[in-house]
Amino acid sequence: MNSQTAPLSKKSMIPKGLLVAIGGKEDKENDLQILSTVMSLVNKEKKKIEIITTASQHPKEVGSDYYRIFTKDPNHTVGLLHISTREQAADVSFLERISEADVIFFTGGDQLRITSILGGSPIEGEILRRYREEFCIIAGTSAGASAMSKTMINGGDSREALRKGTISVSSGIGLVDNAIIDTHFVERGRFSRLMQTVSMNPRNTGIGLGEDSGIVIEEGCILKAIGGGITVILDGQNLKYTNVANINSDESIAIENLVIHTIVDGYGYDLCRKRYLKPDDLRRMHLGESEENTNENN
Amino acid sequence: MNSQTAPLSKKSMIPKGLLVAIGGKEDKENDLQILSTVMSLVNKEKKKIEIITTASQHPKEVGSDYYRIFTKDPNHTVGLLHISTREQAADVSFLERISEADVIFFTGGDQLRITSILGGSPIEGEILRRYREEFCIIAGTSAGASAMSKTMINGGDSREALRKGTISVSSGIGLVDNAIIDTHFVERGRFSRLMQTVSMNPRNTGIGLGEDSGIVIEEGCILKAIGGGITVILDGQNLKYTNVANINSDESIAIENLVIHTIVDGYGYDLCRKRYLKPDDLRRMHLGESEENTNENN
Repeated sequence: MNSQTAPLSKKSMIPKGLLVAIGGKEDKENDLQILSTVMSLVNKEKKKIEIITTASQHPKEVGSDYYRIFTKDPNHTVGLLHISTREQAADVSFLERISEADVIFFTGGDQLRITSILGGSPIEGEILRRYREEFCIIAGTSAGASAMSKTMINGGDSREALRKGTISVSSGIGLVDNAIIDTHFVERGRFSRLMQTVSMNPRNTGIGLGEDSGIVIEEGCILKAIGGGITVILDGQNLKYTNVANINSDESIAIENLVIHTIVDGYGYDLCRKRYLKPDDLRRMHLGESEENTNENN
Repeated sequence: MNSQTAPLSKKSMIPKGLLVAIGGKEDKENDLQILSTVMSLVNKEKKKIEIITTASQHPKEVGSDYYRIFTKDPNHTVGLLHISTREQAADVSFLERISEADVIFFTGGDQLRITSILGGSPIEGEILRRYREEFCIIAGTSAGASAMSKTMINGGDSREALRKGTISVSSGIGLVDNAIIDTHFVERGRFSRLMQTVSMNPRNTGIGLGEDSGIVIEEGCILKAIGGGITVILDGQNLKYTNVANINSDESIAIENLVIHTIVDGYGYDLCRKRYLKPDDLRRMHLGESEENTNENN
């Protein structure tokens, strides 16, 4: 971890874990670029991986795909956590497995299943604690990525978006603060629904993950794009005006001045400082050459 | 016409005509808000309207819809110009009708039909001349709107966009300079293809017209939103970086800093000064109170 990527808040608030948010439909047959990256983040030969299938109504089918991939390396210990009730979300043996996992992987499905089953549960508490206090990887794809943010989009048709009341938002797990993560983003043309959500509270940065692409989030701030696709960043901090508070339900939303970026493999974005990071910027950060890092590391 | 809306170039370059670009699927059955607005721009009881069906492969069906609507007012003289060959695009009797029309209306279909049949023809020349030199209305919906800009998107799937080479662009009629007009915009999630096109040459402002919504363009600069939908403005003038010149075909495009707005009925945008216009700004302009207009009009 590099001290120069510390968030603006207190150092003690910097999470020790890493997040990997994936836009869905990551490659599972060929070079497995994204899933391999998830594994490569743990510098251990024998990794413990737990797959949480809570999002899916077909947990066994969904889980077996990832089980097959992650057990290709015989050194890995892979478990499936088919948590589908609030009782199971408090299960002591499940809790122990979460406590010991190097990688906790959330599959796709419906993000409302994740939050309604895990929200406020001991399992969720332990995931949040470990992310804050210990090095571990929390990864999620599709619904598993959407649920990571504190504010979570759980429904709404992009074709009908930019009209008041058409997008449904609720509380996510809250691993990522001040951001809203949407998935299948370019492929399902979800720009309008993320614009609408960001304009309703521009403190939140919109993160639109394309399919077969994702981001690694370091220290709660530094996003690094991975995979073959595109991640869209929607920055509302310079929003000048919106009519959203003055119109009725279903009326069209006027918005002045959102900033939009795309990042691809090798590029990044600093969520805390709202700064675009080119490959050279990321390299400098890892060499400890950023402007914030002067003599401390010498 | 208000002198304060003059573009930054010479006054003699200010077109005397008005453009109305419509995003497709405008209401044809109920209150006809957009089509009525087109008619209301001509301050004459007896209006001459010519419908150009060139974009469509089913010109009679498409034309008859608009013929029915525009002839509801018995004072109107409505003609159908089924121009489907280069020979017809030079027809002297058609040319005469174009010269005398108060409203020239382009239907939807395929914008490449418009440009490949009319491009460089006497009919196109006369439309461009009239727009520059005389008060008249040139309106177009869907393909008829897309063809208005100098740079025209003619194909490309938004779901595959933001990868080099996936969007097809050619020359439009050229009524609107320094802009690219896309249609069915929110409904078909076309943000990615317009972002890609604008980032390839950020001199062009992207205009994404939603369905049942449109813009009136005054003096080649001032866009005023009409209809019930949303128009998206994509301003590339502060683009800081893109990798598009350095990547291979089909690779993902990184883009830093595009600005995005939405305008709805009552709002506008100054294409020449890249300025968002709220209802109050538009009112002030019509009262001759803008900063550019000091003593000239008093």
